[in-house]
Amino acid sequence: MKRILYDLAGEDENFRFSPYCWRIKLALAHKNLPYETVAWRFTDKDAIAFSGQGKVPVLVDGETVVADSQKIAEYLEVNYPNEASLFGDPPSRALTQFIRAWAEQVLHPAVARVVLPDIFFHRLHEKDKAYFRDTRERAWGMRIEDFAPKRAEAVAALEAALAPLRTTLGLQNFIAGAAPSYADHIVFGALQWARLTSVQPLFAADDLILDWMHAVLSAYGL
Amino acid sequence: MKRILYDLAGEDENFRFSPYCWRIKLALAHKNLPYETVAWRFTDKDAIAFSGQGKVPVLVDGETVVADSQKIAEYLEVNYPNEASLFGDPPSRALTQFIRAWAEQVLHPAVARVVLPDIFFHRLHEKDKAYFRDTRERAWGMRIEDFAPKRAEAVAALEAALAPLRTTLGLQNFIAGAAPSYADHIVFGALQWARLTSVQPLFAADDLILDWMHAVLSAYGL
Repeated sequence: MKRILYDLAGEDENFRFSPYCWRIKLALAHKNLPYETVAWRFTDKDAIAFSGQGKVPVLVDGETVVADSQKIAEYLEVNYPNEASLFGDPPSRALTQFIRAWAEQVLHPAVARVVLPDIFFHRLHEKDKAYFRDTRERAWGMRIEDFAPKRAEAVAALEAALAPLRTTLGLQNFIAGAAPSYADHIVFGALQWARLTSVQPLFAADDLILDWMHAVLSAYGL
Repeated sequence: MKRILYDLAGEDENFRFSPYCWRIKLALAHKNLPYETVAWRFTDKDAIAFSGQGKVPVLVDGETVVADSQKIAEYLEVNYPNEASLFGDPPSRALTQFIRAWAEQVLHPAVARVVLPDIFFHRLHEKDKAYFRDTRERAWGMRIEDFAPKRAEAVAALEAALAPLRTTLGLQNFIAGAAPSYADHIVFGALQWARLTSVQPLFAADDLILDWMHAVLSAYGL
C-alpha cells in the first residue's frame, strides 16, 4: 500500500518548512509508518483538489484521503492502534490539547512575526509570492516589508514566549517525559518552521531547545 | 492523625487567596484526605519556623512537615498511592510540568498585574502591608500605586494570556479531560487567587472559565 504526504516546499523542492506537515512527519515516524512525500506549493490547489480543500498536510493512505494535521493524527491513532500511541491515555491526550492551543495561539504567531519576511524574500517559490503576500498581509493587517524593522523586538517576544518550554525541558528530556509524543511533535513543528526559515540563526548551537529538537529526531532515527 | 495546612489569609481570616495553597487544598480533596487549615499571614514567620522556611503552604501530616506546593503534591502522591493519582501516568505527569511552567511564568504575572493593588488596599491584614509593599515593589520594580492606572491594559493582557485555556476548555470539561487532575488544580489556583482578590469582577457570570472552576469544586463536593 502506498502512503503519500503532500508536504509544503519552498523554492528548493527539498526545503520543507510547514509546522503542520512536520507534526505529521513525526507522527508517521512515531507510528513507524513508511511514506513518501510530494513537494507542494501554496498555489498548487489543483494537485490536492481531490482532498476537498486547499491546504497541506494531506495524507493519502491507500484508499483513504485525510486533510488537516489534527484529523490526520487522530486518523493514524485510530487506524494504527498496534503502533505506539501518539497521545497516550485519555488524560495525556487532554493535556496535549492545551499544548496544541498554546502552540497555535502563542508560539505560531510569535514565530511568524520573526520569519514572515525571511519566508517571503528567501524561501518561497516565485509562483507562491503573490498568494503569500495577499493572505499574510490580510491576516496581519500589515505589509511584509514592515516586519523586518521590528525583527529584534519579535525575536525578544519569541524568546519570552518560549519560557515555559525552556522550564519544562530543564526538568525532563521531552515535553511528554522520557520519550516524545504528539505534544513534542506539535511544538517541534513550530520550532522547525522557525529554525529552517530564519535567515539568521535563532538559537545558539548549544541551546537546550536545539538539543531537544535533535533528540526528537534521534528518537525516530531521523 | 492530625493533618494541618497553613493557609494564607487576608485581613478576614476566612479570606484565603494564595494560588499555591489552593493547589494543595484541591490536591488534598482529590486524594480524599481530611485536613484542617490554620490561617497564616505573610509576616507570621515564627508560626512556620518549624518548617525551615518562611512561606505557605506548609503541610503537617502527623509527624511529617512538608513545605512548598510542588513538594507537598509529590509527597501526597508518593505517600497516598491508594488514593486517586494527582498526576496520572508518567507522560501525563510530564505534560503537567509544562502547564505548571505556563501557569507560573505566564498566568501568575498576568494576574498579579491586575490584582496587586486590590490585594494591598482591600484584602491584606494591616500587619502584612509593609512586608507586601517591600517584597512586591522590589520584585516588580514599581510602586503599588502605579499598577492601578494600567488596570485596563493588564486585564486585556490577562485575557490574552488565557486564550489557550479557553480553547482547551472549549474542547473538554477539564484540562486533564473527563476529570480534574493536578494540572487543573494548578490553573484553578491562579484563577481563584485572581477571582477572589479582584475588587471588580474579572469574569462574566456565564464565562466558560467560571463554569470550569465551579466544575472543579463540584468534582470534590466543594
